[in-house]
Formats: sequence, structure tokens, C-alpha cells
Amino acid sequence: MQVVVPFSATDPKTRLADVLAPDERREFSLAMLEDVLSAIRATGREPRVLTTSSIDVDAPQTVDSRPLTPAVNDVLAEQKDTAIVMADLALATPDTLERLFSTPDDVVLAPGRGGGTNALVSRHPDFRVDYHGTSYLDHLRIAGDVRASVTEVDSHRLATDVDESSDLAEVLIHSDGSACQWLREAGFSLSVTEGRVEASRDGKG
Amino acid sequence: MQVVVPFSATDPKTRLADVLAPDERREFSLAMLEDVLSAIRATGREPRVLTTSSIDVDAPQTVDSRPLTPAVNDVLAEQKDTAIVMADLALATPDTLERLFSTPDDVVLAPGRGGGTNALVSRHPDFRVDYHGTSYLDHLRIAGDVRASVTEVDSHRLATDVDESSDLAEVLIHSDGSACQWLREAGFSLSVTEGRVEASRDGKG
Repeated sequence: MQVVVPFSATDPKTRLADVLAPDERREFSLAMLEDVLSAIRATGREPRVLTTSSIDVDAPQTVDSRPLTPAVNDVLAEQKDTAIVMADLALATPDTLERLFSTPDDVVLAPGRGGGTNALVSRHPDFRVDYHGTSYLDHLRIAGDVRASVTEVDSHRLATDVDESSDLAEVLIHSDGSACQWLREAGFSLSVTEGRVEASRDGKG
Repeated sequence: MQVVVPFSATDPKTRLADVLAPDERREFSLAMLEDVLSAIRATGREPRVLTTSSIDVDAPQTVDSRPLTPAVNDVLAEQKDTAIVMADLALATPDTLERLFSTPDDVVLAPGRGGGTNALVSRHPDFRVDYHGTSYLDHLRIAGDVRASVTEVDSHRLATDVDESSDLAEVLIHSDGSACQWLREAGFSLSVTEGRVEASRDGKG
């Protein structure tokens, strides 16, 4: 099985712009990528990064500047047995990824919070992705259209793509990897306000 | 194993007040409770509701008007082998709950998004809860203090307690139970705005 990690190298994580400067967003997104690559390697597989432009990372990389959907569909067309794991799954662990990789079905989908598809395995030659909108529901439909059997992987760790400031608390609670360390060094810690847990930043409110 | 479902009967789901009127919040919270009770029964277990005041529900109920923490701690003191499952886990399925119930450890915790504890199993006589703040981290510590072994159940379905309007989309995407049906009948449907998926309501914006 090839395991491919798409990475957006140009102005990454714009929805974190309210709490992180552009260079910080880039550093943090690379720290999350490192965590994802490490977790994949710990399952005994060798990940490849599919990036929109060349980056400094210790892994094989393929540069494809097109949007996510056509770039991933070319990867799926290359080889029948493929896993696609998003680069911002900072909570991913080897156990959780092993659960994804070893679920035996034509198509295995890990939904993201908000209806996205954060990770998937395809073992069907005709399955293709469409990441626009509620891609999880679209992928269920596409799998049905090509008569592929499909299973959901029910995982909070894989459902948590780190997109917004409210997601940072999840990293501080559930990870001790590079991304969590980066946040702590940048001054983030957990705080409880009106019964809700948030990641807040020293000296920046 | 006794399975207990705490339910807050007085002004439930206040954080949904921006999208639901008080009587709607009550109806919706009872629909979620029904879904949780059905999913527990489908695992072959008979749930009991721990409610702050008497409600109209087809299940045994214990009324305890105290806050959640002391009420649940009395339940844990009654019997060593106890599961606590929150009433607002509208995405819970029999499979997911079976994964929780059958994980063999002294304490099994299903974290909620935001650091809460949405479901747990305790098989240790001295384990107690503290639901204030980041209860998931507190429960890990409390389990350590009483030398109980502890395991996390990594589940998006159990991590999704339906508290805020952004959680309603998860119900529409991942459930077809009473709560989902209630939302659809109340005019909610999925909509995609600026690449983000939301539950929006007919005629109410």
C-alpha cells in the first residue's frame, strides 16, 4: 500500500490567521506534517508527501501545484492500493492509523468534523475523490456509484483536522508530538473559560 | 455492568439557544436521549436514566437534583462495574458503544471534543469523576491516583456531544435517528458556506 500525505505549501492554515502569523502558520503546519509522517512510519509504512511546492521535509515528495482533488485522483489512478492521510491530523497515532490501514474493505473513510474526509484507503480501481463541500457524503456516494464496499473508521483523532483556533486545544490535550511542542513553545496553554476549554496564548490574550 | 445515562431536565442545552427555542431544546434533548438509550439497548444492556427531575421516558429513572459530579459519584459508589454515557451523544451507535463497554481496563474513557469526558466505564472501586473543566485530563489523573489502569476509546461519534449549533451538522451527516429526524422536521438541513458545512434552518436563516 502506498501512503500519500497531501500538503498545501502556499499560505497554509489561513483559518488560523487570527492566532498565528504567516511564518508561524507555516512552521506549525510543518510540525503537524512531521507528526503525521512519524505516526505513519511507526505502522511500518513509508509515506510520500504530495505537496503544492517543494518543501524541506525528510520524506519522498511529489510536487503537484494543482488543487487537491485532481492531484489526489492522479495518485489513486497510479496504484489501486492507496491511502490518503491529511497533513494536519496532529492527533494521529500509529494505533489509529493502523486501524484505518487494516480495515479490510474496498474503500475505508475517516470522516472529519464538519463533513470532510480526513483519511481514506482505496483498494478499488475506480474510486475517485471530490474534496469540495461535504466530501464524506460525496465519497460514500462515489463508492456506491462504482460498486465499492465502504466502511467508516470512527476516530476522534482522525476526525480532528487542525484548521481553527478551537482545534488547538485538542492538540494540547491529546498530543505530545512536534505540533504540541511547537504550540507550547509559542506560548499556548489550556485555559478554561465559562466551562469551555480553549488554547490561549501568553501575552497575546 | 450497569449503564447510566445522566440527563439534565431543567433548561437543557442552553448553548443551542441561538438556534432553538426553550421548548425545542427540551424536545431535541429528549430525542437525543432516546437515540442514546436505543443504541445502548442494541448492545444487549438495559440503561437507566439519572435525571435532575422526573421525565417522560421509557426507561428506569433515578431522580437526583444535585450537580452532575456528586450524582455520578454516588452511582459509581453503588456498583464497581459501571458505565456512564452522556445523553447528548446523538451519533452513538451500538458498535461504538460496544467498543467502549468491551474494552478491558479498570477505567475506559471516551474523550469529548474540548476536553470533556463523554462516556466512561469504571471497574475500579475507588475511581470517581470530576466533570468540571478539562475533565478528560482530570480523569486520567484521578485514575492514576487510585492506581487504576486506563484506556482511551478513540471515537468521533462518542467525542461529539451536541452542545452548540456547529454540532448539529454532525447529527445531520452521521445519524438517522430520532434527533436527526427532529432536526429535519424542524427545518434544518446541511448547507455549505465558504467551504464549511453548517446546519441551517429554513426561513430562519
